Amino acid sequence: MRFDLAFVGFGTVGRGLADLLIEKRSLLEKVYGIEWRVVAISDIKLGSILDDNGINLAEALRLADSGRNLEALSVQRKGLSAVEAIRDSSANTVIEVTWTNIVDGEPGYTHVKTALSLGKNVATTNKGPIALYYRELIDLARKKGVHLKFKGTVLSGTPAFNLFEGPLSGCSVQSIRGILNGTTNFILTEMEKGADYSSALKEAQRLGYAEADPTMDVEGIDAAAKLTILANVLLDGNIRPGDVKRKGISSITPQDVQSAALKGERIKLIGKAEKEGDKIFAEVSPTPLPTSDPLANIMGVTNAITFKTDCLGDVTVVGPGAGRRATGYALLSDLISIARSR
Amino acid sequence: MRFDLAFVGFGTVGRGLADLLIEKRSLLEKVYGIEWRVVAISDIKLGSILDDNGINLAEALRLADSGRNLEALSVQRKGLSAVEAIRDSSANTVIEVTWTNIVDGEPGYTHVKTALSLGKNVATTNKGPIALYYRELIDLARKKGVHLKFKGTVLSGTPAFNLFEGPLSGCSVQSIRGILNGTTNFILTEMEKGADYSSALKEAQRLGYAEADPTMDVEGIDAAAKLTILANVLLDGNIRPGDVKRKGISSITPQDVQSAALKGERIKLIGKAEKEGDKIFAEVSPTPLPTSDPLANIMGVTNAITFKTDCLGDVTVVGPGAGRRATGYALLSDLISIARSR
Repeated sequence: MRFDLAFVGFGTVGRGLADLLIEKRSLLEKVYGIEWRVVAISDIKLGSILDDNGINLAEALRLADSGRNLEALSVQRKGLSAVEAIRDSSANTVIEVTWTNIVDGEPGYTHVKTALSLGKNVATTNKGPIALYYRELIDLARKKGVHLKFKGTVLSGTPAFNLFEGPLSGCSVQSIRGILNGTTNFILTEMEKGADYSSALKEAQRLGYAEADPTMDVEGIDAAAKLTILANVLLDGNIRPGDVKRKGISSITPQDVQSAALKGERIKLIGKAEKEGDKIFAEVSPTPLPTSDPLANIMGVTNAITFKTDCLGDVTVVGPGAGRRATGYALLSDLISIARSR
Repeated sequence: MRFDLAFVGFGTVGRGLADLLIEKRSLLEKVYGIEWRVVAISDIKLGSILDDNGINLAEALRLADSGRNLEALSVQRKGLSAVEAIRDSSANTVIEVTWTNIVDGEPGYTHVKTALSLGKNVATTNKGPIALYYRELIDLARKKGVHLKFKGTVLSGTPAFNLFEGPLSGCSVQSIRGILNGTTNFILTEMEKGADYSSALKEAQRLGYAEADPTMDVEGIDAAAKLTILANVLLDGNIRPGDVKRKGISSITPQDVQSAALKGERIKLIGKAEKEGDKIFAEVSPTPLPTSDPLANIMGVTNAITFKTDCLGDVTVVGPGAGRRATGYALLSDLISIARSR
């Protein structure tokens, strides 16, 4: 199939996909029958461009990576809003990669809803709309006969949801336990090496893992959003992030970490969800794990999930939970999956 | 699609698939459009039955699980050889689950080749034919327009090959490192707890993990066969088990295990394969790993593989490498994959 793509947001993640689209152009065509062109890019910092004959993506990448405005390119239209880029372009598929807003999902929610309403596929890494409005949006996609893909909202490109569409087809998930946030796992790893919480946080900020305001990560809000998505998709739940019982890591002391170590345990920020009857129980909290647990040994910014399944018992996947290339790959994987299902 | 199945072999693995076919009959039909019936079963111990109108699988399971001969059932024909069951039955798909023979692949090789030549799909967990004759057999399958599936030859139902058909589509594998044999991993785990090699082996035999002659496991032959399959499929290699540089665990002493532990390491029997130019380098050997390595913490009979990929760096999967249900599921997953690709 041919993807006519509109990028809504062209930050690290969008550019990660752009890198891979260019790098893998011939593989995509030969192996997956995928052709693509980009007909619109709209970014709040870099400007907006639309050209139904196709935008030179390599040029757009070069401008964006050097911090220059995309409107320097010669194209049919410039200066559109994100919604105009979705609505007015000939895109059949929208790449929604604006920032996550876990309060009301905006502006991502409007972008996703607009695209689906117009009969355009959506691939997104934006946790806000999916954590808050999954049921509504997936129903809209079905009604319109298009795809809503969001692989990159959890574990970036590392397989999670799509295990159960392919390799684990026919298995049902009984419960989910995971390390869903790399920043907090990095901080806990540093604390195990002897750092106290505030110096570990500073190191995470210095390396770009944590933001200036680290609340979303350290209070478990990011993990709770991801757990919500996992529970709704894989346990057929209908919960919202606020339904997740939640405790962060900001009150963990070096003494907590050391006394766990003395018992042969490691403290990890674990998100877990299970179904009891029709009810989903979901919780994010710092949890001491015996070192024999596969999740206990996930160090640094790596993420991991253990799925308890009816066919295989526990199956664990471990991989990068962030990064330009890994998250860009999540979107590429979504596009391949859309092409496959046609 | 409708699968008319011939079981060649009806031991633990075949019966694991039979359990799941019965248990998930309605799910398979509703979600995957799969109907099935069994038209032949041939087992060297339990006898052979053929009925093109369908065999009562639940009855056959009951007989087999109580060690009674299948020929007690009322069917069209009895007493066929395995090849006759493949050739004379109306099966469109053969479940080849006889014993692994890593020397010449027989009798599995003949079974698989006969089925493919007759235009029948094959799903097998038999490592012999696949480790020895993958290229020949997959070419034959392609020529005949049928499927050869062998997910269960490595890691049972835990996703390995099929990650790259689905969730990791578009990624290329640069190298593979894994704990591919549960028996040796169990023995090494016991030795870490203080047992010496021979008492750990005895315990493995008592629990049914190791056979009376444990050579295949402890000398790394089983792991080398699995590594051969992984390298040929995922690294596009053309090696045979004899090309794998191989050392087993029988000479590992408690001192080796303890001195590794003092350095913060664990000894694991690691199979690794990588490509240098056109050449595959493959090796199975006891390897001390730092405990920060995800593979270092895989304990007991669990298996795991770390794939180094171009899109995501390291991705690790951890899960059961054996067991009636887990290996039966590998075959079910093969059938779903055949049905999907039509």
